[in-house]
Amino acid sequence: MRIIIINGPNLNLLGKREPSIYGNISFEDFFLQLKSLYPSVSFEYFQSNVEGELINMIQEFGFSVDGIILNAGAYTHTSIGIADAVAAINSPVIEVHISNIFAREEYRHHSLLSKNCVGVITGFGLESYKLALNYFVTKK
Amino acid sequence: MRIIIINGPNLNLLGKREPSIYGNISFEDFFLQLKSLYPSVSFEYFQSNVEGELINMIQEFGFSVDGIILNAGAYTHTSIGIADAVAAINSPVIEVHISNIFAREEYRHHSLLSKNCVGVITGFGLESYKLALNYFVTKK
Amino acid sequence: MRIIIINGPNLNLLGKREPSIYGNISFEDFFLQLKSLYPSVSFEYFQSNVEGELINMIQEFGFSVDGIILNAGAYTHTSIGIADAVAAINSPVIEVHISNIFAREEYRHHSLLSKNCVGVITGFGLESYKLALNYFVTKK
Amino acid sequence: MRIIIINGPNLNLLGKREPSIYGNISFEDFFLQLKSLYPSVSFEYFQSNVEGELINMIQEFGFSVDGIILNAGAYTHTSIGIADAVAAINSPVIEVHISNIFAREEYRHHSLLSKNCVGVITGFGLESYKLALNYFVTKK
Amino acid sequence: MRIIIINGPNLNLLGKREPSIYGNISFEDFFLQLKSLYPSVSFEYFQSNVEGELINMIQEFGFSVDGIILNAGAYTHTSIGIADAVAAINSPVIEVHISNIFAREEYRHHSLLSKNCVGVITGFGLESYKLALNYFVTKK
Amino acid sequence: MRIIIINGPNLNLLGKREPSIYGNISFEDFFLQLKSLYPSVSFEYFQSNVEGELINMIQEFGFSVDGIILNAGAYTHTSIGIADAVAAINSPVIEVHISNIFAREEYRHHSLLSKNCVGVITGFGLESYKLALNYFVTKK
Amino acid sequence: MRIIIINGPNLNLLGKREPSIYGNISFEDFFLQLKSLYPSVSFEYFQSNVEGELINMIQEFGFSVDGIILNAGAYTHTSIGIADAVAAINSPVIEVHISNIFAREEYRHHSLLSKNCVGVITGFGLESYKLALNYFVTKK
Amino acid sequence: MRIIIINGPNLNLLGKREPSIYGNISFEDFFLQLKSLYPSVSFEYFQSNVEGELINMIQEFGFSVDGIILNAGAYTHTSIGIADAVAAINSPVIEVHISNIFAREEYRHHSLLSKNCVGVITGFGLESYKLALNYFVTKK
Amino acid sequence: MRIIIINGPNLNLLGKREPSIYGNISFEDFFLQLKSLYPSVSFEYFQSNVEGELINMIQEFGFSVDGIILNAGAYTHTSIGIADAVAAINSPVIEVHISNIFAREEYRHHSLLSKNCVGVITGFGLESYKLALNYFVTKK
Amino acid sequence: MRIIIINGPNLNLLGKREPSIYGNISFEDFFLQLKSLYPSVSFEYFQSNVEGELINMIQEFGFSVDGIILNAGAYTHTSIGIADAVAAINSPVIEVHISNIFAREEYRHHSLLSKNCVGVITGFGLESYKLALNYFVTKK
Amino acid sequence: MRIIIINGPNLNLLGKREPSIYGNISFEDFFLQLKSLYPSVSFEYFQSNVEGELINMIQEFGFSVDGIILNAGAYTHTSIGIADAVAAINSPVIEVHISNIFAREEYRHHSLLSKNCVGVITGFGLESYKLALNYFVTKK
Amino acid sequence: MRIIIINGPNLNLLGKREPSIYGNISFEDFFLQLKSLYPSVSFEYFQSNVEGELINMIQEFGFSVDGIILNAGAYTHTSIGIADAVAAINSPVIEVHISNIFAREEYRHHSLLSKNCVGVITGFGLESYKLALNYFVTKK
Repeated sequence: MRIIIINGPNLNLLGKREPSIYGNISFEDFFLQLKSLYPSVSFEYFQSNVEGELINMIQEFGFSVDGIILNAGAYTHTSIGIADAVAAINSPVIEVHISNIFAREEYRHHSLLSKNCVGVITGFGLESYKLALNYFVTKK
Repeated sequence: MRIIIINGPNLNLLGKREPSIYGNISFEDFFLQLKSLYPSVSFEYFQSNVEGELINMIQEFGFSVDGIILNAGAYTHTSIGIADAVAAINSPVIEVHISNIFAREEYRHHSLLSKNCVGVITGFGLESYKLALNYFVTKK
Repeated sequence: MRIIIINGPNLNLLGKREPSIYGNISFEDFFLQLKSLYPSVSFEYFQSNVEGELINMIQEFGFSVDGIILNAGAYTHTSIGIADAVAAINSPVIEVHISNIFAREEYRHHSLLSKNCVGVITGFGLESYKLALNYFVTKK
Repeated sequence: MRIIIINGPNLNLLGKREPSIYGNISFEDFFLQLKSLYPSVSFEYFQSNVEGELINMIQEFGFSVDGIILNAGAYTHTSIGIADAVAAINSPVIEVHISNIFAREEYRHHSLLSKNCVGVITGFGLESYKLALNYFVTKK
Repeated sequence: MRIIIINGPNLNLLGKREPSIYGNISFEDFFLQLKSLYPSVSFEYFQSNVEGELINMIQEFGFSVDGIILNAGAYTHTSIGIADAVAAINSPVIEVHISNIFAREEYRHHSLLSKNCVGVITGFGLESYKLALNYFVTKK
Repeated sequence: MRIIIINGPNLNLLGKREPSIYGNISFEDFFLQLKSLYPSVSFEYFQSNVEGELINMIQEFGFSVDGIILNAGAYTHTSIGIADAVAAINSPVIEVHISNIFAREEYRHHSLLSKNCVGVITGFGLESYKLALNYFVTKK
Repeated sequence: MRIIIINGPNLNLLGKREPSIYGNISFEDFFLQLKSLYPSVSFEYFQSNVEGELINMIQEFGFSVDGIILNAGAYTHTSIGIADAVAAINSPVIEVHISNIFAREEYRHHSLLSKNCVGVITGFGLESYKLALNYFVTKK
Repeated sequence: MRIIIINGPNLNLLGKREPSIYGNISFEDFFLQLKSLYPSVSFEYFQSNVEGELINMIQEFGFSVDGIILNAGAYTHTSIGIADAVAAINSPVIEVHISNIFAREEYRHHSLLSKNCVGVITGFGLESYKLALNYFVTKK
Repeated sequence: MRIIIINGPNLNLLGKREPSIYGNISFEDFFLQLKSLYPSVSFEYFQSNVEGELINMIQEFGFSVDGIILNAGAYTHTSIGIADAVAAINSPVIEVHISNIFAREEYRHHSLLSKNCVGVITGFGLESYKLALNYFVTKK
Repeated sequence: MRIIIINGPNLNLLGKREPSIYGNISFEDFFLQLKSLYPSVSFEYFQSNVEGELINMIQEFGFSVDGIILNAGAYTHTSIGIADAVAAINSPVIEVHISNIFAREEYRHHSLLSKNCVGVITGFGLESYKLALNYFVTKK
Repeated sequence: MRIIIINGPNLNLLGKREPSIYGNISFEDFFLQLKSLYPSVSFEYFQSNVEGELINMIQEFGFSVDGIILNAGAYTHTSIGIADAVAAINSPVIEVHISNIFAREEYRHHSLLSKNCVGVITGFGLESYKLALNYFVTKK
Repeated sequence: MRIIIINGPNLNLLGKREPSIYGNISFEDFFLQLKSLYPSVSFEYFQSNVEGELINMIQEFGFSVDGIILNAGAYTHTSIGIADAVAAINSPVIEVHISNIFAREEYRHHSLLSKNCVGVITGFGLESYKLALNYFVTKK
């Protein structure tokens, strides 16, 4: 089973900044945990602050992997281009968020991506990624 | 560990109607599966079509159980009263939906409850309940 | 032929209050007229001020009667739950209103139920119910 | 008893086009049925695609007939002029629609005419006209 | 000096209907008064319920008369076509209204025509026409 | 003199939860104080989390008591049905709120009930009820 | 006959500034013209940049003069207080504007005052005042 | 105990105009009643039609009196400046209205001041002031 | 091959008025050019200022011609009736505009017709008609 | 003659995905056709999923080529930056879309680019590019 | 060089109240600093809580001084009259704010004045005034 | 002292294009001026048309420099990602604009960045950068 996790803008700062919102471990450390928890899964991980590079990566992996876990960060709320990419590919995508976006600023309440994803998991900290993975592994 | 699942209006028709949206097993059957999957968890289950009875039940269990899995159905989008009840209690609440509410009518895209819940899990069919349970069990 | 008439909040006050808007005979008296006009039809009648009880009743009768005549009163404008119940059942539903809701306050101009009903009849006083009945009987 | 039926734009295509929405008999054929059903009623029928001609006709007949059955088609949603004409005359007007306008595009959900009519009958196919007629005949 | 008065939909009913809003003399009678008050002015008068005929008339007279007094009635609020015609011609246009449109329904508060007219005179009954005429005569 | 106090959803938690917003005495204790302060007044008290039961109670008491003090809680902002019940009865109703609803979330700033009540008293803690009572007693 | 002209903010700059919008004679000069044109009318004139002083003046003269010609300038669009004053007095008020406010910025298209005035005259330069005066004199 | 009552625009006309809305005694007479009812309270009273003078007065008294009863009239709905003054001072402020502002025009439904006041009392005629005073005296 | 060009309101003034927006040759002259450019195409041309006559013409030709080039002018933005006619016929319709409607007033940015047309060509002056024709000829 | 075609996000998937919307040949193949159709035109072609790279390319070619055919895909609806680049350059730009964007989701109905382009061609499949080219070649 | 600083409502409380937002020195003290920093500049200073007096002062100084530094406080967001005064004068105006108005309540995000000013400086505490002065002095 | 200036899309065209809006010297030349004016400051300068690269640069410098002067150009109005980056770093950021964005199109009036910056300086041409620098140097 092949899974790619794609993270959007500012998520490279995870664990370094604003621990009250985003927790205090880096995504790299969390990624190692994930790998050891699911040794049979083949993982990829990609992060970019550039909207178009996220589209590139969704296109590149979206016809071969068994699942994409996508946290598009701020682009969640403004990128029709990422939403279109998710609609165009074959692999199922789960939208995740670390914080509860519905308890933050109003402009974070609406996602352009959700309607094209299998489902959405929001607000469980880094556990959001685990629950998404859990779904893909169970459904397999 | 004590968990209560609270289902709102029309979810009593699950498995009987509109299988293309809601799947084709009844919630009672699914509930039995859940119980056998997690034998160490003490489960409660409650369904009502009456908004106020859902509030009653959230108040009744909300100071003693370890977690509430709440699918408020149509009241998700209109009930400030249920949102207030969730805010008033001690037990953590996870909002779940069977269908991907963001891929349906626009008036289903906004939840009044989300900001008062730990997090939201949407679109995974009955698996949404399992993922919520998974979170409570793992976090314990 | 089996028909159920379901009335929502405050319609139990009919004939007692605000005759300029709602006429001056009680629904019970009108119901007797209806029964004698259509002796071959088997009628049920239900009224409640509780949104969830209206849902209960729509679910209970909605798989067996030949038609439902629904005046959901104030819930017409706010209840996604009743709209969902109408969508979930098999029996055809006609939405009726006694007053011309489009000539009253703006928040009474929009119905959440209409799109899930066969049709809507508004503004003819208690005649609205008769016209709905007339349709069911003629179509049979 | 004198009744005029006034039909607005594109209703001359009835029975010829889009039978899934509008049924498959022409209004002329339906009009013959109506006449034979109610031999004691003196009928007039008028159709135009021109907004102003509908106003002309409402003015011309609106001080002498016993009832007007008005399906203003697309002008229902945009014509303040027709609404003003309905308000200015003496004869009672019933607004009818063949399709359930509330189950179609959002811009068809709002009628400028309704508040000036006796009532509204929507969604019963050509039966909508019969129900309106039924009301006028019964009330006489 | 040549002046044309152009009246829109339902203004042909003036003096016959709703005297509380529109006064109780017909426009024809008022027009005779106007003619005798300003014997040196050459008057034209045109009324139609058809939007396009109003456009026709504005185009026909709009390159030769010294002034147009336009009461477009209900089309005031919806006709981009009449507004475009007013912008396209050479003759100055004054928009008049008999009633105070700002004291009536909200949809009568906005005029699409005003920005293309010299000015607007609203609320003085039939005197509105006289004030407009007064302006043209004085400015000459 | 007969007065009924009707409290809506979650007000049964008063004194137990969120004292920073709602104070820290239970409504039952406060009710005893009220009774001893106004020994000549005959009091009723009713609380429910169910919208329809609040309507039932307003209808039941609304034709006989001298005043209703209504804190409809979350239903204040969403219940056309309660507003209709208040409009339908004879007894004067005062709308009260414990917290200053205008200093809280925006969706708490608008009340559907206010226009049908004598007046509104907001933000004085439990004193809001006393001021309302004070008004009824003084006016008597 | 007694008439007062009340001018609002920045109208004291008339004739000095922005002649392309407001013409190039001062209001004082224009006022002298008016006086000589209507020698039998007793005129008052008041200008202030202070909203409350305009209210004071409307109150002071509004129970004795035969007409008020009011150009409230920028307060036209924001002052409920001036609108209330106009509603509270006995003397008829005509709202005038020098420029065509409907051909300027959108926030100048809406007047809070119009509904409480006899009528509105907009866009005729200083002639707007004359037309208003003309109406008062003719109606006398 | 020192209390100041501050009244905004047009409230100086109280008792003279529009008794159906505002009652028929002047505020000066009412003020005398108030003084004799509460002989131990030291009262101040101020009215102005000028927004800035209301701000001046709130600043002048807002650091020394025990309470301010503020009826800002029309400025209630438009004055951020008065709201800022209320927020800046130390004395508690109660917002009062004579009429039920929620039963009047929509633009009177929203107050910019409420969030900065202790509470709001609306709709009880001049009794609104008494209830506010009652609160200050009782709380002392 | 049969093509009809249908032009809406004020397009009969083309070449005579506002050359900066609409160019300076008349449509009749342009039509002759078109005919000589495409001698094998059988052309029809119709212009009207009356909305309903445009509908008439679309209905009359819409079941026999190979293509309709429609410039509905101002009705583009307000006519549901023309949009319905386009949807009801068999012939493909291309919406064209001479000016770039997106660079003009905001109310010209939205077309009610576009969704029912094959495509839209905007802003190329009279070349817009040629491009539309080019498409029909090439596709044939 | 030099022309550059610039394609935005997800248009690199053309011909591979969603043929029902976008047709089934790749843009590269189509580009070869174009080149052989117009041998005298010197073509450039650029595609990127990155908004800023599209801006780069518009700046790089926008002062030297004879025309830009721009299909900005999803960025059409959100990129002020691309719109600014189009406004800043000298070469004329034609906005094209393969699908009829007005017949798709509402957020695709509005383009930020259109007002800065010569014109817009929408809905003709890959023919949209040919029509744009046709315009540039003809106008030369 | 002559510069006037004009401060609007509640800025006279500066240094006395809410130091967390507005700093803790009075404007008078700050003004002395300014004078000693720029001995060659001739300064004026004016503060008022009355909107119309701010307009008076802008008119009085706006044709002679070399620059106006305007902090209109709460009137920034509501006064068309002050905006008009700024547009009518000759002297350049810089809008300043002490706090970052974009980080406060939404109704403070929009300024009616900005479009008529040279520029805007917001959020630097009292330094905002110095930066404005710096600009005037440098540009001289 | 270390300062970085970060410029967004299309600002690389400065001095080359649209001098009426953006002045006529290039940013590079201006940057040399700045350096010679403040020899003790260590400057960095970065420009990109790519949103994500601006985020990269803000992250890279935002934990070490003494100040960031950010002109995000068109991304000012649409980039939540840049706003998040500004919020995540330690260095203070000043938002600057060359033109007065409040005097341009409405979509340029709102900045997503402002609330996370120290302050905003808008409309002073290239002087805006100097004023920002001035603030950082003075505050040091």
